[in-house]
Amino acid sequence: AKSMKQTQPVPLVKDVMADFIVTIKKDQTVQDAAKKIWENSFNHLAVVSDTGELVGILTAWDISKAVAENIFDSVESVMTKKVLTCAPNEPVDLAARRLDRYGVSAMPVIDTQRKVLGIITSDNISKLLARRY
Amino acid sequence: AKSMKQTQPVPLVKDVMADFIVTIKKDQTVQDAAKKIWENSFNHLAVVSDTGELVGILTAWDISKAVAENIFDSVESVMTKKVLTCAPNEPVDLAARRLDRYGVSAMPVIDTQRKVLGIITSDNISKLLARRY
Ligand SMILES: C[S@@+](CC[C@H](N)C(=O)[O-])C[C@H]1O[C@@H](n2cnc3c(N)ncnc32)[C@H](O)[C@@H]1O
Repeated sequence: AKSMKQTQPVPLVKDVMADFIVTIKKDQTVQDAAKKIWENSFNHLAVVSDTGELVGILTAWDISKAVAENIFDSVESVMTKKVLTCAPNEPVDLAARRLDRYGVSAMPVIDTQRKVLGIITSDNISKLLARRY
Repeated sequence: AKSMKQTQPVPLVKDVMADFIVTIKKDQTVQDAAKKIWENSFNHLAVVSDTGELVGILTAWDISKAVAENIFDSVESVMTKKVLTCAPNEPVDLAARRLDRYGVSAMPVIDTQRKVLGIITSDNISKLLARRY
């Protein structure tokens, strides 16, 4: 499914993204979040509402911020609420440019109902480049 | 300095890497590390000896591990000691492949004396791809 041998010149986000993302609720604790990040070997958690819509993002960097400031409160207190996202049918170079411009290393991929479909990271994009030369 | 317009077909690590990396000593605390990660908006710290050689790497993910396990000891207790590194003159696609194969998002770039010259991240490599299509 993730093959680079396509007829299109530019792969789409959905061809490159991880179609799995670990989620958490905003009233869980910072330690719950740290455990999920650690156990899943993943840097990013999608914070979702009870009905599954994206409401925030929480990364290992936010956990460092909590440790630095000694604030071990709810996920809501440390998550980023204005989330940069992308759509599954966007060309991947546009996504790469947005990651670069805003200085983040990943964007959740969402549908028109803000349901989370996956995540695209600079790791995914970097892997793509490994095969291009 | 980081221009993509080169005569070489494949850029080298030194053309793409960040030539700045935040360092820490192994006897500092996990909270010191968290503060450095937070203040510098960076996910990776190079752990260096008193004479400046690389002895480990500590990432925001390692801070999450410390929070998950409730271990707030020295940097040495949470850092990774066997560090994947690369050389400044390696072609960037080889570096990208190594990141992918070992599932890490960055490698310190070191000289033959293990002095740290910078760091190459999948963010740097992803940025490169943003300009290739
Ligand atoms: C500014 S970055 C700095 C560290 C590193 N460059 C990285 O991307 O993780 C860290 C912050 O960006 C936030 N962040 C990560 N991905 C995001 C996204 N897609 N939209 C908005 N904020 C995001 C995190 O919640 C965290 O507070």
